[in-house]
Order: sequence, then structure tokens, then C-alpha cells
Amino acid sequence: MAPQTPRLVIPVDLKKQPWEQELPLHNRWHPQIPPVVEVKQGEFFRVEMVDWTGGLICDNDSASDVKFIDLSTVHYLSGPIKVLDEDGVPAKPGDLLAVEICNLGPLPGDEWGYTATFDRENGGGFLTDHFPCATKAIWYFEGIYAYSPHIPGVRFPGLTHPGIIGTAPSKELLDIWNERENEVEENGLKSLKLCEVLHTRPLANLPSPNGCLLGKVEKGTVEWERVAKEAARTIPGRENGGNCDIKNLSKGSKIYLPVFVEGANLSTGDMHFSQGDGEVSFCGAIEMSGFLELKCEIIRGGMKEYLTPMGPTPLHVNPIFEIGPVEPRFSEWLVFEGISVDESGRQHYLDASVAYKRAVLNAIDYLSKFGYSKEQVYLLLSCCPCEGRISGIVDSPNAVVTLAIPTAIFDQDIRPKSRKVPVGPRLVKKPDVLKCTYDGNLPITRNPAAST
Amino acid sequence: MAPQTPRLVIPVDLKKQPWEQELPLHNRWHPQIPPVVEVKQGEFFRVEMVDWTGGLICDNDSASDVKFIDLSTVHYLSGPIKVLDEDGVPAKPGDLLAVEICNLGPLPGDEWGYTATFDRENGGGFLTDHFPCATKAIWYFEGIYAYSPHIPGVRFPGLTHPGIIGTAPSKELLDIWNERENEVEENGLKSLKLCEVLHTRPLANLPSPNGCLLGKVEKGTVEWERVAKEAARTIPGRENGGNCDIKNLSKGSKIYLPVFVEGANLSTGDMHFSQGDGEVSFCGAIEMSGFLELKCEIIRGGMKEYLTPMGPTPLHVNPIFEIGPVEPRFSEWLVFEGISVDESGRQHYLDASVAYKRAVLNAIDYLSKFGYSKEQVYLLLSCCPCEGRISGIVDSPNAVVTLAIPTAIFDQDIRPKSRKVPVGPRLVKKPDVLKCTYDGNLPITRNPAAST
Amino acid sequence: MAPQTPRLVIPVDLKKQPWEQELPLHNRWHPQIPPVVEVKQGEFFRVEMVDWTGGLICDNDSASDVKFIDLSTVHYLSGPIKVLDEDGVPAKPGDLLAVEICNLGPLPGDEWGYTATFDRENGGGFLTDHFPCATKAIWYFEGIYAYSPHIPGVRFPGLTHPGIIGTAPSKELLDIWNERENEVEENGLKSLKLCEVLHTRPLANLPSPNGCLLGKVEKGTVEWERVAKEAARTIPGRENGGNCDIKNLSKGSKIYLPVFVEGANLSTGDMHFSQGDGEVSFCGAIEMSGFLELKCEIIRGGMKEYLTPMGPTPLHVNPIFEIGPVEPRFSEWLVFEGISVDESGRQHYLDASVAYKRAVLNAIDYLSKFGYSKEQVYLLLSCCPCEGRISGIVDSPNAVVTLAIPTAIFDQDIRPKSRKVPVGPRLVKKPDVLKCTYDGNLPITRNPAAST
Amino acid sequence: MAPQTPRLVIPVDLKKQPWEQELPLHNRWHPQIPPVVEVKQGEFFRVEMVDWTGGLICDNDSASDVKFIDLSTVHYLSGPIKVLDEDGVPAKPGDLLAVEICNLGPLPGDEWGYTATFDRENGGGFLTDHFPCATKAIWYFEGIYAYSPHIPGVRFPGLTHPGIIGTAPSKELLDIWNERENEVEENGLKSLKLCEVLHTRPLANLPSPNGCLLGKVEKGTVEWERVAKEAARTIPGRENGGNCDIKNLSKGSKIYLPVFVEGANLSTGDMHFSQGDGEVSFCGAIEMSGFLELKCEIIRGGMKEYLTPMGPTPLHVNPIFEIGPVEPRFSEWLVFEGISVDESGRQHYLDASVAYKRAVLNAIDYLSKFGYSKEQVYLLLSCCPCEGRISGIVDSPNAVVTLAIPTAIFDQDIRPKSRKVPVGPRLVKKPDVLKCTYDGNLPITRNPAAST
Repeated sequence: MAPQTPRLVIPVDLKKQPWEQELPLHNRWHPQIPPVVEVKQGEFFRVEMVDWTGGLICDNDSASDVKFIDLSTVHYLSGPIKVLDEDGVPAKPGDLLAVEICNLGPLPGDEWGYTATFDRENGGGFLTDHFPCATKAIWYFEGIYAYSPHIPGVRFPGLTHPGIIGTAPSKELLDIWNERENEVEENGLKSLKLCEVLHTRPLANLPSPNGCLLGKVEKGTVEWERVAKEAARTIPGRENGGNCDIKNLSKGSKIYLPVFVEGANLSTGDMHFSQGDGEVSFCGAIEMSGFLELKCEIIRGGMKEYLTPMGPTPLHVNPIFEIGPVEPRFSEWLVFEGISVDESGRQHYLDASVAYKRAVLNAIDYLSKFGYSKEQVYLLLSCCPCEGRISGIVDSPNAVVTLAIPTAIFDQDIRPKSRKVPVGPRLVKKPDVLKCTYDGNLPITRNPAAST
Repeated sequence: MAPQTPRLVIPVDLKKQPWEQELPLHNRWHPQIPPVVEVKQGEFFRVEMVDWTGGLICDNDSASDVKFIDLSTVHYLSGPIKVLDEDGVPAKPGDLLAVEICNLGPLPGDEWGYTATFDRENGGGFLTDHFPCATKAIWYFEGIYAYSPHIPGVRFPGLTHPGIIGTAPSKELLDIWNERENEVEENGLKSLKLCEVLHTRPLANLPSPNGCLLGKVEKGTVEWERVAKEAARTIPGRENGGNCDIKNLSKGSKIYLPVFVEGANLSTGDMHFSQGDGEVSFCGAIEMSGFLELKCEIIRGGMKEYLTPMGPTPLHVNPIFEIGPVEPRFSEWLVFEGISVDESGRQHYLDASVAYKRAVLNAIDYLSKFGYSKEQVYLLLSCCPCEGRISGIVDSPNAVVTLAIPTAIFDQDIRPKSRKVPVGPRLVKKPDVLKCTYDGNLPITRNPAAST
Repeated sequence: MAPQTPRLVIPVDLKKQPWEQELPLHNRWHPQIPPVVEVKQGEFFRVEMVDWTGGLICDNDSASDVKFIDLSTVHYLSGPIKVLDEDGVPAKPGDLLAVEICNLGPLPGDEWGYTATFDRENGGGFLTDHFPCATKAIWYFEGIYAYSPHIPGVRFPGLTHPGIIGTAPSKELLDIWNERENEVEENGLKSLKLCEVLHTRPLANLPSPNGCLLGKVEKGTVEWERVAKEAARTIPGRENGGNCDIKNLSKGSKIYLPVFVEGANLSTGDMHFSQGDGEVSFCGAIEMSGFLELKCEIIRGGMKEYLTPMGPTPLHVNPIFEIGPVEPRFSEWLVFEGISVDESGRQHYLDASVAYKRAVLNAIDYLSKFGYSKEQVYLLLSCCPCEGRISGIVDSPNAVVTLAIPTAIFDQDIRPKSRKVPVGPRLVKKPDVLKCTYDGNLPITRNPAAST
Repeated sequence: MAPQTPRLVIPVDLKKQPWEQELPLHNRWHPQIPPVVEVKQGEFFRVEMVDWTGGLICDNDSASDVKFIDLSTVHYLSGPIKVLDEDGVPAKPGDLLAVEICNLGPLPGDEWGYTATFDRENGGGFLTDHFPCATKAIWYFEGIYAYSPHIPGVRFPGLTHPGIIGTAPSKELLDIWNERENEVEENGLKSLKLCEVLHTRPLANLPSPNGCLLGKVEKGTVEWERVAKEAARTIPGRENGGNCDIKNLSKGSKIYLPVFVEGANLSTGDMHFSQGDGEVSFCGAIEMSGFLELKCEIIRGGMKEYLTPMGPTPLHVNPIFEIGPVEPRFSEWLVFEGISVDESGRQHYLDASVAYKRAVLNAIDYLSKFGYSKEQVYLLLSCCPCEGRISGIVDSPNAVVTLAIPTAIFDQDIRPKSRKVPVGPRLVKKPDVLKCTYDGNLPITRNPAAST
């Protein structure tokens, strides 16, 4: 009876570049990226992953790497993994692939991560109209805890999870993606509404050979050119799971993924030591390299049995998730509210995105009274275990969205009190986050009331 | 040393109409609705409330009352309550009013509630384009538990809370509300985006003397006419709190409300035995009459100290909330995901409302496989303790929003399994919700994939 | 469809004495105390209860009532309640009675309670050799919260529960009780071990007509005399449930009680607003009057099906409990440890009672450094939601028992810190508990190390 | 800015024997066992540990290794670790050493463990009079989960913790231990009470050169002989912490240990993947090798500041613990009760050990109805995350102790139901635990009622 060590099916070597790994990585979704490994139903296996940028962001004293990053190369994923049943028959389109996350964590020897906002004209973030500069904070891990030299006064246990876990799309599904995303790219400006300033962010992230890494598809071949032109970017979450960024998808969770191609072709990456709901700063969780220890089960015919397509084709489905039992749990929360009225005072109609933006802005301003810079809070809310909830979505014209922050992550009492906010040694949390200049020309949203 | 029974400051008599109560109710926000009672800081007091409709919805066998309801009269609120400090000095504009909810519950002898969807052309709901009919389910309470003869197979403990708690607006703030909401009403159709079908719901709920109840402002007077024309509807949540519908705002919670008028003029109502995040069916929580037991504290100058206005004036603020320690807590959740692609397959840009709509539709279809009608699930998701989370709001073009449902509320195991969904005695949950016909002409959204 | 108000089957009137109640109370266990009411399986009903002493302890400024209490009269119970199935057939010996606690709380208008230690020669408590005086603290309730003028600096939400819930014993079981308890009373001094001083507490609480109240059994009759001589005291928990003092037995809990007599004859009482594990001060929870709202189910033949007797007869069983989902939950605990070495330094053999005594003494001394008197902490640990755990019971010769205290109940940070315990305004928590002199002659246990 | 990998200060090599490790292990407590390594306050470091037996129990098909184990060699500990402050000044007697557990787990490549009961005449266990045979179950780990081929039908997440963490005793404290434990060994039989049969277990575990391993103290020297004769066994928990077996002492916990010798001399070992309160089978947790990642802080003078000695000397103290925020949490518990009446029906006086024994016996019998052998349940209750609580310790003559079991660890619903316990495929959980014969002559306790 041999002990049950997980079988390491995909190793990564952090001293090598993403394209130099023994088992090649990929950074696009495409049915023709061949699997790099096979696993059997019930098998306990381990996958290692580089961080989403493949090492472009460094543990140093500058945010320049963030400002000038080439985002065409993200996210580097490990896989695809072909899944077979006990008899060696692969998962088939129409099955459901149940993936249990038995364990996960940072890679030994690489116990650090980063949170950042991109420059407004190179990626941006949810509040890029308020905070157009590239910023960066480094986090170090002490076991379950993370702390940052750039955001002093907070330390919290991580609710670690993969940002991306998904199956390969079929060609038919890929075409659906490319078509609909292309349309928003082409016609978007006409129909845009979300705090207009956001339109300076990329509307969609369309296929582009630039920066493409396609696993075992060999560069320079005709096939590479074809696949690269079609392959979907990994940035948005879609029918295949992908970049779902569910902050509670940690140890013990189970993901029920639709299978679109033979073998399922499971890929994972974008490990987060911790993330706040919404991942508001975009490079927003504590991004890191890491590992997953997984078990798979094939539910034959499960798509039809359990998923109802919602849209024009049977492929318009979404995965289902079960949250695991092991989490840091907090008993006290301070909750900020936003309604769908924007910073200019304009009324939007039941718009949860606008309401969440206002809730986050409210929280940033509030916490900045306790000695933090607004950039520190913006990065913090992007990566600490805060919850973004849709509280009311029916009371025209206001959506009400709330942001709940666990008070225990701070080393001071952040609740309102009859006496004033304490001043003194805690007034200013120094040093600040690393920051670059913003050299663009797009207008910055000011808070009219704050300037009075 | 007398025991500390809470002082009943606002009683209601459920045998009387809202306009016949000893202390008059009101259903609008206006600075000139006079307080009906005074309380002191630190005092422990009790407020009773009729249900939001003041008894229009009955415990009977028909949904006709829902279909033909006159929504101009909601929500009936108890108050305003003038708050003084220990020296008798009232709360002042610029203060923060900390209201602690020490206890709450249904009114003794009235332990029942209802969940409903309005007719598409008389109020509607979040999914009114899919479910245009008026429907109703009655819930009975057994202490902490609720069960419904119309949705068999579920029973859950309530996370009881007030849907509405707020302070009176100043005239200046009221004018801001009326102006911005009027604008969306006038120009809305041009800028609409949210799944166009929703435009058949009222865009805003503008002031209207119709159905108005104004507390101590005497009907028939010139003042009544003036106030009625200006007074804001209570439907949307706004800067004063109001209809915030925060489902966790239960026992032990604390609300930090901005004070806009002398005495704060606190009003409450719209008690919910339980509510799901989003309150998707609109008449969506388990609506009931009830009581609150409260304590108030005045934080002098607290608005400036703790709230940063976000918008053109110092009045553009939002309240802050602290969640209490006493909740039914669940360890297992099944999570449904939605992305900002609508039912027609069209891509929307980072739209959390669209993504939540899809997550809810996914959950409805999934649960309908376990023997429920879709209407049963729609009402259930509106009132059971499910969580709606903004998971990713930055990964263009898709917002990812999730809906997490505690599995323990069902009397069967609702998780996907390798074996098929059990059939047999549990296949159909009968009887169904009460339902009326929809006699209007607006188009109904079909799920194209489901019809194949 | 009438609303589902619980049927009030046993009312109490707090202005009357226990023996004057409309439905007579009882304070002994005996099969021949007749039921005062019947309920049906599935029915939702309400029972009201006086506090365990029937009003002997008052909300006043002295502990004299505690010192001179006549303990022969406790606990006053409401019932017995005869339980029938839907067809009117009563529960039978051998069945299991599942009792669900749907709701509970203090009686309206009587929202206060008390915690006390008895005089060492009239009842005592777990630490009576250290604290021989009668003491008392009054608690007031603000909804879910309790606070005491006698123990300033703490306020906590109650985990309210009935201290006593049980079925009537059969005559055979009653005889077993009386025999075994009589034996310990007669032979106890020879076999005693538990910190010898404790032997000054009553060894058993044997039947005694003194103070007896027997419900519908009429005083002065021959039957009364006979029953009074046989009827078991309610102080110890036994096979029928009874005084189980399970602090988490709150809303939503379910108790599976063995049935020994026809109809089950369920009785309840001894309501606790809150209790610490062990109820160490004996009059130890926050004692109060209160109500229960219950539902019963009869599991036919359930004793044999689910309970295995452990002892010489089929009657040697214990009930089973299910804990409910609604509790105040705490995320931070400070944990004190005790091992089975007593205050004199003497080694005991795997004695969990000695180890728990030391853990409690350790906690009292620790907390007294934060401004409390030891009596304040003793009463506090008896009634706050602290947990007493058997950590190790096998590592000869030491049992290890721990006492975990939720830190959130204090208004100061009670954790050890590198800087000294803060002095100043918080040094002394005044006023102290109410206290009487101890006029007896039994030796008091001193802590030898503390006196150096 | 180098990443913050913990410094590995004590490695172990599982291919070597305990006495062959690079940094020598020890299995006794003695002030003169020299430290093997130094760490500084604030430093983040890693300690590796063999399992408590140093590899004597194997992953094979027999329990013989358990039956014939030489217990004189347990527990093998890693350390001592000398702790210095930032200036290099060691911790001093009278200080408090705060040790934070930042992370822990099994050693990579050794992800398995075992639970066992010893033969009644070679170690025994809490219920050895009922279960005199040596038994063993092997557990395999899948990340956070453990499952056993010998106890099918259960799988649970581990609440992993060190069974032993402690500082070295001073010579004075060591003398106190040896004296008091010697006394119970010599006089124990006269004063015994705990279910007399238990007296066949060793009364104390006195110093003995047999099996002794003393770290850097060289075998064969005069010093070795002297230290070996004095050094305390590691089995009981004592003033220095040691074998405290607190099942919740997992990630994020903090232990405040008294310092008795210069440098504190911290030692750890006895890693448990999971343990039930009481660790009832003695070899009772899921025993494994493992690692700890720690941070230390010295609280100067903290013993006097925070600990009150309880006993004849200032050394009679106990450590304090803070429980961490990351735990698997369960919402449903089935609770078994025991009172201080033993299996023969005899009444004991407020004896929590007897009451816990009965609660455990009740639970074993109950669960055996669901297809388990009693030995399977006995081992399971020893290692699964069940809670043993002292519910009532004052209601003469019965102590009430409860054992709460999380229902989610079972793959079937174990609650009592109106319909019978399901029979059929789940009736017998096969295979059973590994078991040896018991060849001794001591009487076995039978349950009289069960035999009828």
C-alpha cells in the first residue's frame, strides 16, 4: 500500500520562460491546442502554474514593469489536460467534468505575489478614470498570511484559488465568442453607457497572433498561424469557465465544467493568493505562481442533465461551482453601499456596475481617513477577502450594491466612533504603493464634492 | 432597578388601515413630514410596522391582489422618529445617526408572509420579460423557520431584516433626487441598455400625489398638496438609506445614517422575514409586518468625519452598515455563474446586471430539474438566503456575477451527481405558486436554446 | 388559510406564585404527575415557563435572596405535555420523541435575568471552595444582547436555550435513579476524590417532600405523600434528558428524547438567556423566565432503533441532540488550559473535572488582570458563551481540558501583548457583583503561589 | 527584496531512524538537552518532524506493529530551538514565548497517517476495558481530505495541528513533575476511581532510560545516564505545554508558552492530520510526520504579567492559546450525551471523565447501527473533528458531558428518522479495521443491557 502522493503531471520551472517549459504552456483558448498530459477519473494529480504574466512583474522597487507590460501574452495557462474514465475512454462533448480542488498554494520557494493597476492606456482597471497611473504592491507570505511592505497595517489569511480553470471550447463555441466580441468592439462606442470614461479600456480582447503561445502547436507552421488568428484571449470568463475569478473557489471546492471537445482539455492558471470580489484593480488579486492538486470525475451526458443552455445554441451554458468547507471566516464586516448614480450625479437605470463602482469609491474614501493613501486602499480592496453583493436589483431606478470588508484584517479599529478618527502615529501608513506617472491625455474623473 | 423592556414608541394595529393608525404612517420621503415621536440617544425602544403594502396582499388562494395592486401607495413606513441626545438636543444635519438593531421579528399573531411577482405591466420584476404573470406564494413561520404550501420541499431559517431604514432628506437633497430621476424618465429610452425588454418596467418612480400618505401632514391642506407633489417615492434606495434591501441587516447590525434634517427623522418599514440578494422578483422577500427594537447614538459631525460625498454636492453620500453576529450560517453552497452575454447571445460590456440576470436564469433552469416549476424557483431565489456576488468586473468584455444557494434549504440533495437526477415521488413539487394570466401584449423573452 | 400562530398550550402569569398558576407547575420527576395538556405530532405550540426558582431571586441590590434560598423547590417546570400522533394515539414507551425548538426567548415584559453563586453551605458551586460567598449579578436584555450593571465592560448576544427538557421517567427508571443516588449519598465520603473540598456540596439531591410541587397531584392526599417521597429531584441530568444544560441547544435544535411513559409527558423549564459550558457557578447561566415554541414528532419504536442502552437495563439510555443553525458565532477565542493537578500541586489520574477546575481558575486569574474582580469573572464564565473542551483524556496521568472564551464579548483587547496590560481608566471594573458574607467554618482553598 | 521563504531550521529525513537525523531528536523533557538551532524573534522558520513513533507504525496490512510497539521511545520531538530577540539576547525564565503557527502540513511525499488503539496491556486507550485489542486504520490524504480503506464511507477535511509544542522545564519544575507523578504511581491504586478497569493502564509515565533519546547529549556518557534518569516522559501535557492535544491548534493559532530556561528551548512533534476532542483511542489522532512554519515573539516578563501560578510554586502555570481563523467549519452536528453513571449503573460524583466515557460509548453504539463495526467508530471518533464538551459540572451528582459529531463527514444521513435505519448496500462497511487478538487476562467490560 503505497502512500497517496499526488502525481505531478505538469511541472513548471520558474527559472525558465513560459515558452521554455518542459510541457509547453498556452495563453489562448482553442480546440486545436493539443493536450500535454492525460489523467484518469479518480486520480489524484498535481498541476503547477506560473503566475499569469509568466514572470513579467518583479519583486523590485518600481512599477515600471506594470506600466509597460505587454498584455498580449497573458494569461499563461498549464494544460490542456486530457481526462479519461477508468476504462481509458475520454470525456466527450456533452459530458460534465467535475473537478475537485483538494489542495492548492504558492510554489515552494516562490512565496510572494503582487497586486497592481495598469496604466489607463495599457489595460487600466475598474476605477482607471480615477486612478490612471500604474501602481504596484508586493506581498510576502507567511504561511496562510500575506503582508505588504507597501500597504502597512494590514495582514490577512489568504483564501487562495485559481483565477482561471476551464475546458477547451469547440470550434463552434469559439466562433460564437469571436463573433459576439467582435461586434461589441465594432459597435461598442455607440451603445456604451458604463461611466463613459471606461470606454478607454479595451472593449473586447479579440484574437491576435501577437504574444500568442499555443502549447504543442509549433510556432512558424501554417497551423500556428491559423490557430493564433482564431484562438480566444483568456481575459474574459465565458461558457467554458475560464477567468471566472470566484474568490471562494478554494480548498475543497468542486467545479462542474461543460465538456466541448474530446478529452475535455482542462487548463488552469492565474493563481491568486487572495482576491476581493470584483478584482477591481484588474491586476487585482495577489497574483502568484502556484500549484493545484485535483481529482476529476466525468458525469456522462451531464451537460444535458444538469445545464440548461441560455442563448441561441446548446453551447450557451455556464459551469456550476460548489464552495469548499475550509475558509478563513470573519465575524465582523463593515459594509459600504453604492447606488446607480455616478460621480457626476447622473442617474443610471438599475446598473449594478455603476452601483458597485460607487460602493468601492465610498470604501476607498472612508479607509483613506485611517492613514492610507487612496491607491493603497484601491489595491487592498482588489485583493483582500471583501465581498461585493448585489443587494437590490429591482427598485427602479437604483440598483443597490454593497461592498463588505472584514474588519479583522486591519491592525486598528476602523469602525465609526463617537470620538474622532484617531490621529497620531497611525495617521499615515508609509511607505506608499509603488507608482508611475500617467503620461496620457484622457480626462481624469474628479469627485466634485471632495474638491470643495 | 426596573427591567429593561423596550419602550413601544410606534404601535400598529393590523385591524386598521394604514391611514387609520394611531400614529400616522407615511409612504413618501419629505423633510416636512413631521416626526410622530421622540427618542433619546441610548434609549431602547420598539417600533412596529405594517407590511410594505399595508395589508393589500392577503393570505388567500389567488394572486389577483398582486396583479391589480395599486403600487402608488407603497411602502408604508413607521416614523419619522426624532432623535435627541441625553441633553435633549436633537441630531443635526451633518451628524451621523448610529442605529443598532437589537431585535426584530414578525408581529405576534401575524406570523406569515408572501413573495410575489407583479404583472409585467404593473410593476414587473427582474425577470419580467421571462415571467410576465403575477404570481404569489404564501409563507408560514414556525419560529425561525418559514415554509410555503406553494413551494413544497424547502424550509429555511429566516435572516430577518428591515428592507427600509432611512432618515428624512433635506429639501436640497430631495430636489437632487427629483431632478436626476426625472431626467432618466425623460431621456431613458435613448440611453437604455439593460436587456431592452426591461424598459417596460417603470424607469423611475417619480413623485405623485396619487396614493400618497404623509403622516401628520393633513390631507386636504395646501401643505399636503405641495408636499405630495415633491415627496420622493420610497422604492429606490438613495443617499438617506431607505430601500437598501441588505439581506444580512439582521439582529445585532448597526447602521450609520447621515442626518439631513434636525432630529434625523428616522423611518422604517418593509420588513422581510428573509430575502435573497437582489430581491429578484421585486415583491421579492418574504414580505411581512413586524417590529424592530432599536438603540440610537448620535455621532456629532460624523458625516464629515466618516463619509466622503461622491458627486456634485456634500449630500451625495451613502450610509455605512455593520453586520451583526447572529445569523443562520450554511456550510455548503451551490454556485451559479452568469456572464454579460444576454439570452439572445449578444455581448454586453462589463454589465453586472446582465450577468446577474443570466446567473439567476441558470439557477432557475437547474433547480427546475428537481421537480419545481420555474415560477417556484424564481420566487424562491427572491426570498431564500442566497448570495449574489460580483466576482469579476474587470475582464473585458465580460462581467462575471455568481449566485450562491445554500443546499441545506432543500429536502433533497440538489448537487450534480454521476447518476441521473432522481425521478419518482420527488419529480414534481405540487401544488404550484398561485398565478394569474398575463393579458398584455409585450413580447416575452424565450430561451432559444431551450426551445430546441 | 389561517396564519400559523403557535398555540399557547401552557401560559404562565409572573404575578402569581408557581403553585398558583392556571396549569399547575411541578418541580419533581415522577410518572404519576398527570399531564396538564395534550399536543399532536406536527402541531406548532408554545410553552411558557417561570424562571427555575419561580421568582425567588429578585432584581434588587442585595444577594441575600441567593444566600438564603430554599433550594428544595427548584426547578419549577411547565408540563407534563402529553404527545399524541395524528390519529390521537399517544407516544408509547420505547418510542423516541423528536422535539424541535422552533423559537424561544424571554417572556415579553420580563427581559432580565441573573447569575449567582450560592453560599458554600447552601448549594455552593464548582469553585465554592475558593468562592464560598453568595454573589449575584443582574443582567438586562436589549434584544439579543445582555449586559450587567454588576459586570461592566462586557455585552454579548445570547445563545438562549432551555436548561431542562425531558420526558417523565417510568416507575422502574425512577427506582433506578433513587437507588444509585442514594448509594452515593451514603457511601460517597469513602470514595470521594474530586478536590476534597467539594464534598461539602450535596452529594446527591435525593427525593424530599420538602418544597415539592406536583402539578395536578393534589397536596394533602395520600397520593401526594407517596409521590413526593419517590419523585426525583430535577437537579441532575439523567436518562430522560432533564437538566442537560447544553448551551448550544437553541433555535432550530432538535432533541430526540426516549419515551418511558404513555404520552411521553414532556416537561421543560430553567430557561437560560446564555450559559457557558459547565455552568460553573451553579446558578450559573443567565437565569430567566421564558417561552419555547415547539413541534413534536413521534418516532415509533425509536428507542430500540436508535438508542443502545448502556448499563444494566434497557432504560439506561441518553437522549440525542441536533444543534440548530442559528447562533452568534465568534471568530476569535482565547483558550485556557487545565491539567489534572490540583491547587495543592497534587497529581490526579486523568480526571477531567479537576482539569476543568484548573482551566477555569486560570481564566479567572488571567481576566482579573484586566480590571475585573475574581467574582465578576467567575460569574461571567458561568454565563457567557465560553466552551469547555476535553482536549486529551488518554495521556496518563494528565487529562487536558480547555476553556475557550470569545474575545469579542469584551470592550477591550484581552490578548497578551508585548506591552504591559493597559492600566488607567480600565483598571477597575466598578461596581462589583452583589455579595454576602460567608459565615460558615469550612476551609477556603487558597492559591499557594498567589500568596507569595 | 528577496522572497520570504521560511528558513528550514530543522530538516528530517524519513529514510533515516530518529537517532540518525542530522539534527538529533529527543523524546524526553529535560533542561539539559541542548538546543540544536537558534532562531530570532520575528523570523519565519520551518521545522520538520517525524511521526510520534519515529516510523514504528507502517502502512501495511497488519496491526502487529501496534500491538508490540515499544512505547518507551515516544514521542520523538524536533528541537530544542533556542529563541533570541532582535539583539541576540535569549528568552529568559519568566518571559512568555508567543509562537504563531503560520502554516503546517504533512511532509511532501509522505501524505498518509494512521489511527490505532494499543493492546490493553501495552498502552491501552480510553475504552481499553471495552476494546482490549490492538487495532489500526491507515489514512490517505488527498490535499485537505483524509480517507481510510479501513473505515469506508467517511472522508473529511483535516484540522491539522501539532499534538506537542512546549518549552523545556527548569530543573525545579522537572523535580515537581517527577515527584507528583511518582506519588500517583505509588499510591494510585488506593485512590483510584475512574471506572476501575482503567487502572490497568499505566498510572503515570515515569522517567526511564529505556528508549531514551536525548538530542545532543551523547549516549554512553555520565551526563546521558543522569539526564535519562531524570528526564520527564512526553506523554502527559504539563506546565510547559507539551502534549496538549488541542484539536483546533491549526493554521493561524498562537501559543503563549512560559519560559523556564534561557532560550526557551522550544520543541515540537506529534503532528496530527486531524483529531477528535479527547483523542480517545490514545494513538488516536491521524498520526503523521509533518512540518510547522512558525514565528516567535518574546514577551519580556510575560509570565508574571499574564499567567497566575495555580499551585505551590510560581512554576505551576499553564500556557494560553489563541485559535486561528482557518478551519473547516461544519453547520450540522449530532450530539451524544453522557452522565456520570458508569456501565454497571453505578453513580459517580460529578465525574466528567466517566460522563465523557459514556457519551463516547453511546456514540459508538449509535453509529454502529449505520453499518460500521464498533472498532471503526472508536477509531473514527478519535480522529475526526468531533467536539467533547463539558456541558454541566455542577448538578450533583451528575456531570453532563457531550460529544458532538459533524454529520457532513459521512456519506449517508446519520440522523434519526421516522423510517427505520436504512438497510441494504450500506449496512456493513467493509473491510474493517486491522485487528490483533488480545491475549491477556484482564476482564473486559460488557454492556449488560446490550447482551439482553
